[in-house]
Amino acid sequence: MKKIKSFFWGVSLFALPVFAQQKPAYLDVDKPIEVRVEDALRRMTLEEKVAMTHAQSKFSSPGVPRLGIPENWMTDGPHGIRAEVLWDEWYGANWTNDSCIAFPALTCLAATWDTEMSALYGKSIGEEARYRNKNVLLGPGVNIYRTPLNGRNFEYMGEDPYLASKMVVPYILEVQKNGVAACVKHFALNNQEIYRGHINVQVDDRALHEIYLPAFKAAVHEGQAWAIMGSYNKYKDEHCCHNQYLLNDLLKRDWGFDGVVVSDWGGVHDTKEAIFNGLDMEFGSWTNGLNWGQSNAYDNYYLAHPYLNLIKKGEVTEKELNDKVRRILRLVFRTNMAKERHFGSFGTEEHALAGRTIAQQGIVLLQNKKNVLPVDASKVKRVLVVGENAVKRMTVGGGSSSLKAKYEVSPLEGIKARLGDGAEVIYSPGYASPAVKEQDVLGAEEPDKMEIDADALRNDAVKWAKDADVVFFVGGLNKNDGQDCEGNDRSSLSLPYEQDQLIAELAKANPNTVVVIISGNAVAMPWVKQVPAIVEAWYSGTEAGNALASILFGDVNPSGKLPFTFPARLEDNGAHALGEHPGDSINVKYNESIFVGYRWADKQKKTKPLFAFGHGLSYTTFAYGKATATKKSLTADETITFTVPVKNTGSREGSEVVQLYIGDKKSTLPRPIKELKGFSKVKLAPGEEKMVSFTIDKTDLSYYDDTQNRWVAEPGAFEAFVGASSDDIRSTVSFELR
Amino acid sequence: MKKIKSFFWGVSLFALPVFAQQKPAYLDVDKPIEVRVEDALRRMTLEEKVAMTHAQSKFSSPGVPRLGIPENWMTDGPHGIRAEVLWDEWYGANWTNDSCIAFPALTCLAATWDTEMSALYGKSIGEEARYRNKNVLLGPGVNIYRTPLNGRNFEYMGEDPYLASKMVVPYILEVQKNGVAACVKHFALNNQEIYRGHINVQVDDRALHEIYLPAFKAAVHEGQAWAIMGSYNKYKDEHCCHNQYLLNDLLKRDWGFDGVVVSDWGGVHDTKEAIFNGLDMEFGSWTNGLNWGQSNAYDNYYLAHPYLNLIKKGEVTEKELNDKVRRILRLVFRTNMAKERHFGSFGTEEHALAGRTIAQQGIVLLQNKKNVLPVDASKVKRVLVVGENAVKRMTVGGGSSSLKAKYEVSPLEGIKARLGDGAEVIYSPGYASPAVKEQDVLGAEEPDKMEIDADALRNDAVKWAKDADVVFFVGGLNKNDGQDCEGNDRSSLSLPYEQDQLIAELAKANPNTVVVIISGNAVAMPWVKQVPAIVEAWYSGTEAGNALASILFGDVNPSGKLPFTFPARLEDNGAHALGEHPGDSINVKYNESIFVGYRWADKQKKTKPLFAFGHGLSYTTFAYGKATATKKSLTADETITFTVPVKNTGSREGSEVVQLYIGDKKSTLPRPIKELKGFSKVKLAPGEEKMVSFTIDKTDLSYYDDTQNRWVAEPGAFEAFVGASSDDIRSTVSFELR
Repeated sequence: MKKIKSFFWGVSLFALPVFAQQKPAYLDVDKPIEVRVEDALRRMTLEEKVAMTHAQSKFSSPGVPRLGIPENWMTDGPHGIRAEVLWDEWYGANWTNDSCIAFPALTCLAATWDTEMSALYGKSIGEEARYRNKNVLLGPGVNIYRTPLNGRNFEYMGEDPYLASKMVVPYILEVQKNGVAACVKHFALNNQEIYRGHINVQVDDRALHEIYLPAFKAAVHEGQAWAIMGSYNKYKDEHCCHNQYLLNDLLKRDWGFDGVVVSDWGGVHDTKEAIFNGLDMEFGSWTNGLNWGQSNAYDNYYLAHPYLNLIKKGEVTEKELNDKVRRILRLVFRTNMAKERHFGSFGTEEHALAGRTIAQQGIVLLQNKKNVLPVDASKVKRVLVVGENAVKRMTVGGGSSSLKAKYEVSPLEGIKARLGDGAEVIYSPGYASPAVKEQDVLGAEEPDKMEIDADALRNDAVKWAKDADVVFFVGGLNKNDGQDCEGNDRSSLSLPYEQDQLIAELAKANPNTVVVIISGNAVAMPWVKQVPAIVEAWYSGTEAGNALASILFGDVNPSGKLPFTFPARLEDNGAHALGEHPGDSINVKYNESIFVGYRWADKQKKTKPLFAFGHGLSYTTFAYGKATATKKSLTADETITFTVPVKNTGSREGSEVVQLYIGDKKSTLPRPIKELKGFSKVKLAPGEEKMVSFTIDKTDLSYYDDTQNRWVAEPGAFEAFVGASSDDIRSTVSFELR
Repeated sequence: MKKIKSFFWGVSLFALPVFAQQKPAYLDVDKPIEVRVEDALRRMTLEEKVAMTHAQSKFSSPGVPRLGIPENWMTDGPHGIRAEVLWDEWYGANWTNDSCIAFPALTCLAATWDTEMSALYGKSIGEEARYRNKNVLLGPGVNIYRTPLNGRNFEYMGEDPYLASKMVVPYILEVQKNGVAACVKHFALNNQEIYRGHINVQVDDRALHEIYLPAFKAAVHEGQAWAIMGSYNKYKDEHCCHNQYLLNDLLKRDWGFDGVVVSDWGGVHDTKEAIFNGLDMEFGSWTNGLNWGQSNAYDNYYLAHPYLNLIKKGEVTEKELNDKVRRILRLVFRTNMAKERHFGSFGTEEHALAGRTIAQQGIVLLQNKKNVLPVDASKVKRVLVVGENAVKRMTVGGGSSSLKAKYEVSPLEGIKARLGDGAEVIYSPGYASPAVKEQDVLGAEEPDKMEIDADALRNDAVKWAKDADVVFFVGGLNKNDGQDCEGNDRSSLSLPYEQDQLIAELAKANPNTVVVIISGNAVAMPWVKQVPAIVEAWYSGTEAGNALASILFGDVNPSGKLPFTFPARLEDNGAHALGEHPGDSINVKYNESIFVGYRWADKQKKTKPLFAFGHGLSYTTFAYGKATATKKSLTADETITFTVPVKNTGSREGSEVVQLYIGDKKSTLPRPIKELKGFSKVKLAPGEEKMVSFTIDKTDLSYYDDTQNRWVAEPGAFEAFVGASSDDIRSTVSFELR
């Protein structure tokens, strides 16, 4: 664009030397952030302010080059630092310096039930983001697991608001110690992928506040998150990226959030709503490399020229703009212009090890009859590995969380490496997903077998199974469309690609058949009684195969617990029991209300889950003693502590997640039978006993009263349930709130 | 690449929480750099060390991601921050955040004869580099102007080692204050573009030390440059990017340079020479997006796998590698990991104004008969602008210094903007270069006229000239191949595209014809006596047209002086007089020795330059009084000061560059008649007189004795010449070195 500058005639304006200028407050890292924000704001032009509120490329937004305020660079996503893409294209930029460590999916992190693992995750991924010069990490995600069909559940932290709240906080705190903002997503009520761009969620205030919001609130209040991403869907008939109630009334006013609200990519639909309803930064509105007319395509963003023009025409004042820019400046001063900032690190062995450790802590031993697991590596001579997921590259796919991993150890590679020359490992695919391609396969020796028809694949595997000492079936879901993948939901609870028949036949052929499910979602298991051992191994990232092998062969004692219910049938889930998924394309009604996950299962009583929330076995056994309380009753100002002795009654060291649930025996409004209000992962040597304590107060006894629009702790009788899972309560204590 | 990691069996290595580790010394910004360097070095693996010594993309080299040591990102070039290119392609990456301020070419900076302008330039471009996250700026260039045919002279600082030395230092110091390394280039003897990749320069030691090296030495000793770029050519039959004498013996040993030697892009030719002969970082070896085999193409760099393999085979030790890596780490700790670092700024009005100011100070008024200039804007009604350079985009082209400028004001636009509605401005191209394309043209109203044949273009311009109050011919060279452009030299001293005939006819048609030459090189002017006024306006960047207009209409009083000689004929230049350009394709002999530029002109006596080194007029006049000295003789330990009164005898304020030359009346070895040893730009109000002083010592009297290999100040009689140019000496003082 041609431009003739205004003139300055005559000799130089510069009183030379010009180098002794006083440092402006906004550049002074020793000044309080709010002072820097106000100083920078007053120096900015209208155009500079508007420019900051929207993207300039797929993942960046402008700074103020004139003032030396750096650009903001975002990166997907919750599981690793996304590879570089072209400026305004989704295609990769083919850089060679951006191969990251892929960390386990957030479902796996949630399954650790260990806040130290969450801190380790945040620290590691934060360091990776920092090294790659990204100042906003688009994660973590804490949307509640409402239905096992949601294609994006694997990116979230399960069905329970308390568990997600506790797990999200250390992740955020540690990410942000690197001078990288965590951008918690997707706010709010984005619980399905079908119709996600427009579906209007109808949910009662109780479910909103008790189920869907607590993890976000914890992210803001305890995690002090510097950014939050609006979701694609609607609530109260307004898109959540510009939603008066969620963003202005709740997040910014009631919760006091002082950071930025970032749109999901393409989640903005209206300039005036974007101006007035709480959005701060617009990303991903459609351009895809196309210039509309001759201008920069990004000038057409809702918050670009359209916004500027409204202000210039006097239809909108700068009031909202200044608020947005203050928040964006706050982001910059907290990250790129922070006083002290680490340099990060990238693709390191330490991070890989962190990922492996998290996976080892998160893998869940669902079933283990006759102690088939762990397999004694010194005793097996012939091991059969069956299943596409034993070789499928799982760090790729699934949508925006897809990664260019530095490396990925497949289950087959992990098993082979663990066994070394000690045993023969045979691989037979057993089944194949239609979309599998050679480049997606890690460590398969015979990828051409993928071409064979389903019957032949199955028959080949079953034939091998007969002669093996042990069969590891590694299947489950994958990151293909319609499985665990952004943009769509699953069509059923069943395993795809006829895996059920294969597993049943393998089990018949070999009694030592271990089923390993790789997934981010619950699956149906019609063969559950036919196989002795079942492991939920999640999407576990770079070190997936090593982590899995360490569990299968007993190098690590499993200690993960399910962060969501595995229903026996889809209709045992509240949303599906009521026929409320995925809605009518306009609206979806959360008629199950607060009865999500185990809250629904508990209420239905007759329906026993396949595997309950909180369930997970160990290679050792734990005995729970009788729980006691410090008092029989408490006032609203007091706390009460419950203590239970837990003992390792087996022969090897292990960790147990001891869980505390609270039930309100009688309440004005209906309440769940019990709700998680405490958990503690304790490591116990053989024979060792520890006292495990939980202290709660009235907030843990409260419900959201939608007639009064506030949290209420109603006096009366309560019960504290201490147990090994939501359906394995070992001790109960009654108490009273006075 | 598939990779199975070594295993760590059993439970986590992490003693959690892992967050309280002691900060390693290399990350401690308060530790001395050498401590940080040694601490980082000892933590690095062999592979990590080798990786740091060569590029990973067109403009970047790896850091140590494991240790959080950032990557190094380089940017062309001396005149502005180059636009982003693709990872391993020269094609632009089409980012929209990288449109820079284009600063005047370095010839223009040198023509200011003002070290404050150099500081302003360095500060401004350093801030631009910093904002764009580049930590190495590939510039400035200080190769000496040996022949007016060198296609790359416009990127350098003229023919005189003293002037270049004084001008380069503030540029470097100010760039580096931004935490950005200046990479001084091209070391050394890269004085022509023809055969540049292999020509072996044969030069005697006197010329080497007295003419070609001083600016580099000043860059190292006074500028404390953190990086130097090796040149493409050979010296002593070795490529200068890995040259034992230049890099090891001279630069690193004798001069004590502790920074990095960076190769010119593609300037490396041999692994062992690169290892042993002083190179530290290899860039630009041929890849162009092609993978050789399946590996990363950059692994084939001379200092990549070939180096690693030599070390692994034991043929080479890590001694040289550790030296290289220490230097690279020093670079990192001085820039990306420095304790305090500004944030820079980019594309700012302040930088544009800096560029304009530098241009206003550097534009040279070569001739001004009858005070045709300045033109009184209030009195002209019809102004004709002729010449392709009035509209040609000059920030583009010329090789690696080509820029994507935020904007560029052409001379035509500058003149039109200055005159506003006060006068009619007619543009007639007059001539056309074959390569001109519509997109290269700024502000031309009738680009289709470019298609017309040369006679028609000329006739049209001459016709318009007859009726104009004033004619501004804006021609000269351009950035096309064979003009002022990297990769080739000019074929003659003459103006291209038949401009001579056009100018002669314009002058005949209109006595008020002002010739503006846009170039970075001297040009022949057969029409010099036919036109009243001539201006050398250089390549002046973003604000070129505004700067030029401010001179033409007298808003700014010109004060630039030529940094190189304009010979009347090519054969008046030493290299060409002796037939020693461009050599025989194998060797080029600098037989003119130290007699470069005015040193040759002075020696030849009979040949008077068209315009001499140091020449430049003003709209006012200056009278020089008699120069005096503080003493008649000095010892080798003393200094002597010369003082001259200079008075503005005209009617407007102006600045004069007062020049001091020293001549050795008698010496054992032949010496130039005189050599520049001082200059001072003084601003004087009308009637004002100032005393201008220069203090010198024995170093200013010394020559390089190639029989003793050292600098010698030989006792005897000297003369100090004080004047307005090298051929306009106003006062002489004799003195003696005892």
